[in-house]
Amino acid sequence: MHGRANIKAGRDGSLKLGKVSLVKLAAKYGTPLYVMDEDYMRGQCREYLRAFRSRIAGTEVLFASKAFLTRAMAALVRQEGLSIDVVSGNELECALSAGFDPGNVHFHGNNKTPSEIRRGLEVGIGRFIVDNFDELELIAGTASALGKKADIMLRLAPGVEAHTHKYIQTGQTDSKFGLGIADGRADRAVDMALGLPDVRLHGFHCHIGSQIFDIEAYKLAAENMIAFAASVKERTGFVYEELNLGGGLGVRYVEKDRPSSIDQLAELVCSTVVSESKKHGLKVPKLMVEPGRSIVGEAGVTLYTIGAIKDIPGIRTYASVDGGMTDNPRVALYQAEYDAIVANKAKEKPERLYTIAGNACESGDMLIWDIKLPELKAGDLLAVLTTGAYNYSMSSHYNMHAKPPVVFVRGGRAQVVVRGETVKDIMKPQLLPRRLQG
Amino acid sequence: MHGRANIKAGRDGSLKLGKVSLVKLAAKYGTPLYVMDEDYMRGQCREYLRAFRSRIAGTEVLFASKAFLTRAMAALVRQEGLSIDVVSGNELECALSAGFDPGNVHFHGNNKTPSEIRRGLEVGIGRFIVDNFDELELIAGTASALGKKADIMLRLAPGVEAHTHKYIQTGQTDSKFGLGIADGRADRAVDMALGLPDVRLHGFHCHIGSQIFDIEAYKLAAENMIAFAASVKERTGFVYEELNLGGGLGVRYVEKDRPSSIDQLAELVCSTVVSESKKHGLKVPKLMVEPGRSIVGEAGVTLYTIGAIKDIPGIRTYASVDGGMTDNPRVALYQAEYDAIVANKAKEKPERLYTIAGNACESGDMLIWDIKLPELKAGDLLAVLTTGAYNYSMSSHYNMHAKPPVVFVRGGRAQVVVRGETVKDIMKPQLLPRRLQG
Repeated sequence: MHGRANIKAGRDGSLKLGKVSLVKLAAKYGTPLYVMDEDYMRGQCREYLRAFRSRIAGTEVLFASKAFLTRAMAALVRQEGLSIDVVSGNELECALSAGFDPGNVHFHGNNKTPSEIRRGLEVGIGRFIVDNFDELELIAGTASALGKKADIMLRLAPGVEAHTHKYIQTGQTDSKFGLGIADGRADRAVDMALGLPDVRLHGFHCHIGSQIFDIEAYKLAAENMIAFAASVKERTGFVYEELNLGGGLGVRYVEKDRPSSIDQLAELVCSTVVSESKKHGLKVPKLMVEPGRSIVGEAGVTLYTIGAIKDIPGIRTYASVDGGMTDNPRVALYQAEYDAIVANKAKEKPERLYTIAGNACESGDMLIWDIKLPELKAGDLLAVLTTGAYNYSMSSHYNMHAKPPVVFVRGGRAQVVVRGETVKDIMKPQLLPRRLQG
Repeated sequence: MHGRANIKAGRDGSLKLGKVSLVKLAAKYGTPLYVMDEDYMRGQCREYLRAFRSRIAGTEVLFASKAFLTRAMAALVRQEGLSIDVVSGNELECALSAGFDPGNVHFHGNNKTPSEIRRGLEVGIGRFIVDNFDELELIAGTASALGKKADIMLRLAPGVEAHTHKYIQTGQTDSKFGLGIADGRADRAVDMALGLPDVRLHGFHCHIGSQIFDIEAYKLAAENMIAFAASVKERTGFVYEELNLGGGLGVRYVEKDRPSSIDQLAELVCSTVVSESKKHGLKVPKLMVEPGRSIVGEAGVTLYTIGAIKDIPGIRTYASVDGGMTDNPRVALYQAEYDAIVANKAKEKPERLYTIAGNACESGDMLIWDIKLPELKAGDLLAVLTTGAYNYSMSSHYNMHAKPPVVFVRGGRAQVVVRGETVKDIMKPQLLPRRLQG
């Protein structure tokens, strides 16, 4: 339904995710509610491993946890044999608390703090993905002080930027992330890393963008990265072992979206890595990829209850829901587009044009502009699709809205993995000093 | 300093808010840290009351709590004699927990839920600001069922929209908020409200925008609202008692900003309300205003520690801080501009151009593009100004970043009013079912 294999209208007209009625879930857990298809997520993890390892054995697939991280999610990807990348000390703790071997955790970010670096070294993290010179120095110094070795890769800016429908190739990169190849910073960082006794440089990392449809950009990035590795070998004798090409594969939000499959991505990336390595006389490196959105995005559905409906004569009809930018800030942040189905009217024809508004006290809190739905009335249940990535993880308490619970659906059964918050949870850190009590 | 009376460089070169050294605060509480000048906020509350009540006695000033709400903040405005507006059941609970008389709480929002309405009626809330027909019906029905009377005002769309530097006047309003005057919805809502036995209609409300510099827009809005009230009286005989003109007064974020003063706003609004009432032969209504940003915005400073500094040859120099879009999403959301001072180098000349990047794993996580600062190095302390509004209240846990603590500064002393979160706080609602532990 709407291009999703896991979403179907049941015989009674209620929408089903996997085999679970979303109407029943909403009745049981209330709305708003995040529902995640665990079977789908496990399937995506397996498909990544299959598609890449069948082409380049030993490829390491790391879940880009910033897309959706809870303790249960970390445990799920661990069970599936993925590694994980984290971008903060707290994400590291979450992965560890879910049973991750620290060696399978890679630490990203453009501004790791001294304490995050110390903690990573102490627990024996797999790789630091080093973003800049200051950080390289800090990691080296901290490792020496602790009597440890730091295992690192360098994050490079390969001069390829991918956007949803196109890529651009630039000589220089104006980004807060990474070390430019073209401007010589990448070379300088290699030289510096090779001269640091407590640092072990394993290879190079790049990440060219997000929600990418035009996967040709990965080919270019791989070509540039391998050419760089070859030039480093020639210049310094250093032979890299590992190549991490990041994440960014697009998913389907709305009908018009045409993402590539994991298999297409793997074919393009692996064939490029093999052929470019051969061309430059390099051994095929250990390949790494970092999917986030493509593991969790289409797994997620957010359920809302329709409230007030407002018909502005000659303009539009607003239907408000009991959530919005607080549980899904992507529309306000990126003008992201979403598709939706009325979960209790899944077999009715979409006949009327609606605009779906959130309930935050903010004009920008809109979810969907102009979507055809069956005639709505208060109490109807709206299922917004593809909310698995960057919804829960970016949610806020604006207007003191509680974060909704998260339910995993597997094999026809549902299980709460994040309980809903109460106002007490939200106010817990808020103190009321005595002088303000009178 | 930078146009702020409450911010000064101390003799030792450290920046002071009130009389408190921000360098010392950062050393004591860590960074990122929200610091709020309590004396400034109390001063703004008093100035609102003085400026309006000296012109129209009995004016009610309501703090628009969505701008910055904690239990301590609610208590502060209560002590200063303001009322408060809330936009969710949780904000209502927060106000009550800070000692607010429910009668001084007004309930806003475009999609109040049935349970929020019930709770509001049960505790005896001052006013519901009714946004639409569905809600009016729901409030009336709930009041009847509970044997209560609902005290309401109608939120109208007066056909004036104000933006920072200009206003537009429109015949019809395409907004999720309010009932259009021009399209006849406002009239219909009045008729409906007057026919509901358990609803007491007290008057009309409008809110024309945010961060408004061109205050002439308020004059137009007041004219339209009073003309509407006169036409209602003529048509139905109903005489309104209350007029709420909302909030939206701009504050200074960057040097070029030239907000009007509270006194200028009060003079314009009160003189318009008096003269328009006279013109239409109406009694001067009880006036209400709802400042949020202008109470708290300039009171706030966020302190960050400078981390990695990245010079991209020929392009720009990025300096990263240990916070960003997670504690201040306004830059990513609205391309908002901010000013900053290096708190430990407050007397040094700003000589170099920097771009301040946040630490979230997101290209859009930038705080300030192109600001002149003294030469930076890791460990420097950056004070970003005017972060009191819509920073804490909109903050998120993206990348699992903890929300920073909030400190109030008063009479030269600092006091924590929101303690910093730990990773345990963030993970507390996250469950790890047994089947995911293996």
